[in-house]
Amino acid sequence: MVGAGQLARMTAAAAVGLGIRFRVLAASPDESAAQVCADTILGDYRSTDDLLAFAAGCDVVTFDHEHVPQPQLAALEQAGHVIRPGPAALRLTQDKLVMRERLTGLGVPCPRFEPVSSLADVVAFAERTGWPVVLKAVSGGYDGRGVWLCQSPAEAGVVLSHGLRLLAEEYVPFERELAVLIARSPSGHGAAYPVVQSVQRDGICVEVLAPAPQLSEVMALDAQQLGLELARDLDVTGLLAVELFQTRSGGLLVNELAMRPHNSGHWTIEGAGTSQFEQHLRAVLDLPLGSCALSSPGGFTVMANVLGGTDPDIYDRYIHVMAADPAVKVHFYGKEVRLGRKIGHVTIVGEPGDDLAAVRDRARRAASYLRWGTEDGD
Amino acid sequence: MVGAGQLARMTAAAAVGLGIRFRVLAASPDESAAQVCADTILGDYRSTDDLLAFAAGCDVVTFDHEHVPQPQLAALEQAGHVIRPGPAALRLTQDKLVMRERLTGLGVPCPRFEPVSSLADVVAFAERTGWPVVLKAVSGGYDGRGVWLCQSPAEAGVVLSHGLRLLAEEYVPFERELAVLIARSPSGHGAAYPVVQSVQRDGICVEVLAPAPQLSEVMALDAQQLGLELARDLDVTGLLAVELFQTRSGGLLVNELAMRPHNSGHWTIEGAGTSQFEQHLRAVLDLPLGSCALSSPGGFTVMANVLGGTDPDIYDRYIHVMAADPAVKVHFYGKEVRLGRKIGHVTIVGEPGDDLAAVRDRARRAASYLRWGTEDGD
Repeated sequence: MVGAGQLARMTAAAAVGLGIRFRVLAASPDESAAQVCADTILGDYRSTDDLLAFAAGCDVVTFDHEHVPQPQLAALEQAGHVIRPGPAALRLTQDKLVMRERLTGLGVPCPRFEPVSSLADVVAFAERTGWPVVLKAVSGGYDGRGVWLCQSPAEAGVVLSHGLRLLAEEYVPFERELAVLIARSPSGHGAAYPVVQSVQRDGICVEVLAPAPQLSEVMALDAQQLGLELARDLDVTGLLAVELFQTRSGGLLVNELAMRPHNSGHWTIEGAGTSQFEQHLRAVLDLPLGSCALSSPGGFTVMANVLGGTDPDIYDRYIHVMAADPAVKVHFYGKEVRLGRKIGHVTIVGEPGDDLAAVRDRARRAASYLRWGTEDGD
Repeated sequence: MVGAGQLARMTAAAAVGLGIRFRVLAASPDESAAQVCADTILGDYRSTDDLLAFAAGCDVVTFDHEHVPQPQLAALEQAGHVIRPGPAALRLTQDKLVMRERLTGLGVPCPRFEPVSSLADVVAFAERTGWPVVLKAVSGGYDGRGVWLCQSPAEAGVVLSHGLRLLAEEYVPFERELAVLIARSPSGHGAAYPVVQSVQRDGICVEVLAPAPQLSEVMALDAQQLGLELARDLDVTGLLAVELFQTRSGGLLVNELAMRPHNSGHWTIEGAGTSQFEQHLRAVLDLPLGSCALSSPGGFTVMANVLGGTDPDIYDRYIHVMAADPAVKVHFYGKEVRLGRKIGHVTIVGEPGDDLAAVRDRARRAASYLRWGTEDGD
């Protein structure tokens, strides 16, 4: 796996059980996955030489991020390495304009969009869609970075002044955000996890509810079907996370795609028959896919991200959180605490019949305490 | 963790989630845990120098086996290292005679026993208990090694000829074998997992049923109470596995003790709120203990060990097993295949109301296929 963040770290843990030899390419031995993975190669994912040295002896190369440039991916393939997902699929996650055009070509419902390179372009776009307008960096954004909600031409002007390649998107006054996680193997087998609701704050996912509450069975099946068809049409191998807007009229629009384990799937470690990390390994290795069923059918699983606060010492706060709720599952990524940075997550698997609000509250309290040392910090 | 077998390997995976820096002492880089653990120190657990080098910088030293000699444990303590479980508790698992005498002193029901050093001793013992007589090596045995069921003085004579320190035990015609797993922290907090039934073949555990079927609530509580009291009386920190005989008259006798993660607890990875490996870490680090509750209340979880067959290539057989049952959880230890060696295990978490026989059959088929390449091999 190229990249050694928390996604690679959690994939490394899944590889232990499967008995699969797992190697990561890390920029430094301090990175999240490098701390735990016995087979860590140090190098730069932008260097063809480093990638080739890393890939030597690997059956399959996969990724914990979408940032490996296309020429380097091509060089790996030319050297005979098996890359999953493949370069053509990855390109869609590297360039939002290509992705939007491809989705539109497939007839997939998306927000209206247009490439923009001047204020005149943005104003012309806004004449059709109204303000506010969402401007997005065509490449390189994540976790809310590279996305700007502009209320006026003046605000758009500031964003344009950064000199990035930009895309304008209509602002969708959605009801909520949903996500569906699909696994697809090179043999073409697919599997869909239950549709979840994700809750964002300041562009960062803070909470995931699995399954999405009060979602009609028809709409859940629609979302899973959409995800499975997308995975097939885009020839994805491994995981495909589809972020969706549920609009006020009840329809679904595709917001973003990712082709790797995804924050909206962390709940699967305890909450599903197969964790997304194990599933990604099974998919890219062309092993049969595992069960996506809920571990606690009839109950809700809630995942809350733990963001960095102001105190660098997390560990002392474990005691309170674990004592307060012996069933809370704590996951830390070994990352230095920085304000607002994702440093871990907690999961509560509710029992059938448990009140969703109570399960959410347990997750929220634990995450808040780990961040701030108080249960009411967030 | 001193030792780098499968118990350390699975503990390493649990440490990833907790964000705890985890180091193992391995004899070779090929050992099960050394394959996956980023912080592996090579050395000999019988060497005080190696142990001291390994322990430098560790907050707590714990063990995946009971073989570190007492003088070396004392040297570690004298150098200021924190050892959990402590040397006095570990001594009971290193010397079955000391253990039996201690249990007897505590009034814990055990099979009758006596140290023996000659055939006359064995014959005198058998005059009171009848034949067969069980002879056990006082130290060093595991997985059926070091235990001999002798039907006659002639058979006992062969065992005596090995020149080992021996213990005679009465042969208990038990109904079945049970096990109870306890966690205890230095603060004195204790937690008990549901009582399980273990099924042995040729002295090796082949299957664990959780919870033990058709065990009365009274007897289950008795067994948990016995385990918790033993953990307290023996001052165990970490896990205590208590292997029990359920006799034909319905009583419980203590067979063996272990103070580490135990084969009878592998089912907890998927089947309980907290895996035994996470629980051991929490206990030795004096963190609050996690929930021992069943993940699927009202359902049975079945673990089956995968023993080595005759084909060294396991991996090719994954495809069949995973395709046949998407809910089977496969755990491999990265060990070379040798006939009869424990090389992995599989777990099935049954849903509430699932027929126990059907869940057992799924586990048995998967384990058999992984061993022999056929579902009917065992």
